[in-house]
Amino acid sequence: MSLMNAFRIVLVEPLYSGNVGSVCRAMANMGFSDLTLVAPRIVDGWEEGEKLAVHAGGLLRGRREVATLEAAVADCAAVVGTTTRLGLYRQHVRTPREWAPALLQAAVRGRVALVFGREDNGLANDEIALCTHLVRIPADTGYVSLNVAQAAMICCYEIFVAGGAFEAPAEKSAPAAAAQRSRLLALWRQAMLAIGFMHAEKADHMMQGFQRIFSRGVQTADDAHIMMGVARQALWAAEHPVPPHPEP
Amino acid sequence: MSLMNAFRIVLVEPLYSGNVGSVCRAMANMGFSDLTLVAPRIVDGWEEGEKLAVHAGGLLRGRREVATLEAAVADCAAVVGTTTRLGLYRQHVRTPREWAPALLQAAVRGRVALVFGREDNGLANDEIALCTHLVRIPADTGYVSLNVAQAAMICCYEIFVAGGAFEAPAEKSAPAAAAQRSRLLALWRQAMLAIGFMHAEKADHMMQGFQRIFSRGVQTADDAHIMMGVARQALWAAEHPVPPHPEP
Repeated sequence: MSLMNAFRIVLVEPLYSGNVGSVCRAMANMGFSDLTLVAPRIVDGWEEGEKLAVHAGGLLRGRREVATLEAAVADCAAVVGTTTRLGLYRQHVRTPREWAPALLQAAVRGRVALVFGREDNGLANDEIALCTHLVRIPADTGYVSLNVAQAAMICCYEIFVAGGAFEAPAEKSAPAAAAQRSRLLALWRQAMLAIGFMHAEKADHMMQGFQRIFSRGVQTADDAHIMMGVARQALWAAEHPVPPHPEP
Repeated sequence: MSLMNAFRIVLVEPLYSGNVGSVCRAMANMGFSDLTLVAPRIVDGWEEGEKLAVHAGGLLRGRREVATLEAAVADCAAVVGTTTRLGLYRQHVRTPREWAPALLQAAVRGRVALVFGREDNGLANDEIALCTHLVRIPADTGYVSLNVAQAAMICCYEIFVAGGAFEAPAEKSAPAAAAQRSRLLALWRQAMLAIGFMHAEKADHMMQGFQRIFSRGVQTADDAHIMMGVARQALWAAEHPVPPHPEP
């Protein structure tokens, strides 16, 4: 059972079903499943919401609707409010990344609500007062107000990443070890001399360039094999002149 | 001049203007300004795009349109492709958070493109081959495909946050220091005894509870002042019985 199931996404009086649908897709992308709407004011029907939820239409249709924020969070041990404004009640604000570990810990033992305000007017002061944690998403001072689905995505993403459920794609090839790197450079020195790329007296200097390039570019044993193959082929070619390609 | 100006957001053959508008808003939220579309296939006119860009309509109207990805990134020192698929060419993938520092460093000296694929079909192999860096956004295995504007938001957000341009809202009150915490607890011991909350022989035990609660809840000098005020008022009340409130 994933910890994400202990989180509830709460949207207060959403206006556009497209935003609700986008929130559903973001929730599914990050492994969340509990959606509650407070007194939705949807002005455009639910078609756009279904369209933007794409494969998360089940979350949209499974939403709970309640009349007040109080009812939406009644069973929650932690209530996280999102805000872009500062002021009374709004001083103790942290970023989603700062709060994520504490929220995951709270989710081990209880339910945690992430509350997002109205598209046009955010959360009111009496709603902020219901929150145990306040979040402000880092943003450029020129335009601090995020779309509600974008804000939900960033909060869900930060919690998902902090939860450590994501395994980065494994590199299939082992890292290139120092001994292999030495063999690679030795082979290149031999090949570059053989094909006349450099003279013996300049070899040390030129090899520093390859050393620099390979140290960045050759990361895995596979990479090293490829570049060693290049050197071996160059050596072969230097000893066995290739017949000129006939014109097509 | 912000480093974000060295980044270019490239959308390959976008279909829905709403997504392009949402990308513009996300860009403006995170301080990005350079938008290039590759062979856009917009099927729904630009009205929805303007609506979803909200205050970032200038970015939408200032977009550049080119015929190929090659043209879009011709002047870029680093080209970052986003992908959800693994396979040939797609093994050396990292998360946006892992790449962000390297990309910011690249942006000091050159232009950096963040490339997002088609809504319906991502990036093709020959487009992936143009990329110097590949990114995969952490997501739940049940639904790994993000909306293009959500993907752009997370990439821009990670770079913005790694750039350190965001200053967290400063706590206006200083942290509560140890000496103040001691005074607070001494005052509470006195007050809790005075109002008969606890007997002297249980005081040490009960005070451990307050110690625990205050260590979490009382973070700043302001917090401590408030809780000291409560104790002082309780002491006063214990010595000056309050007249019963008259019924309204």
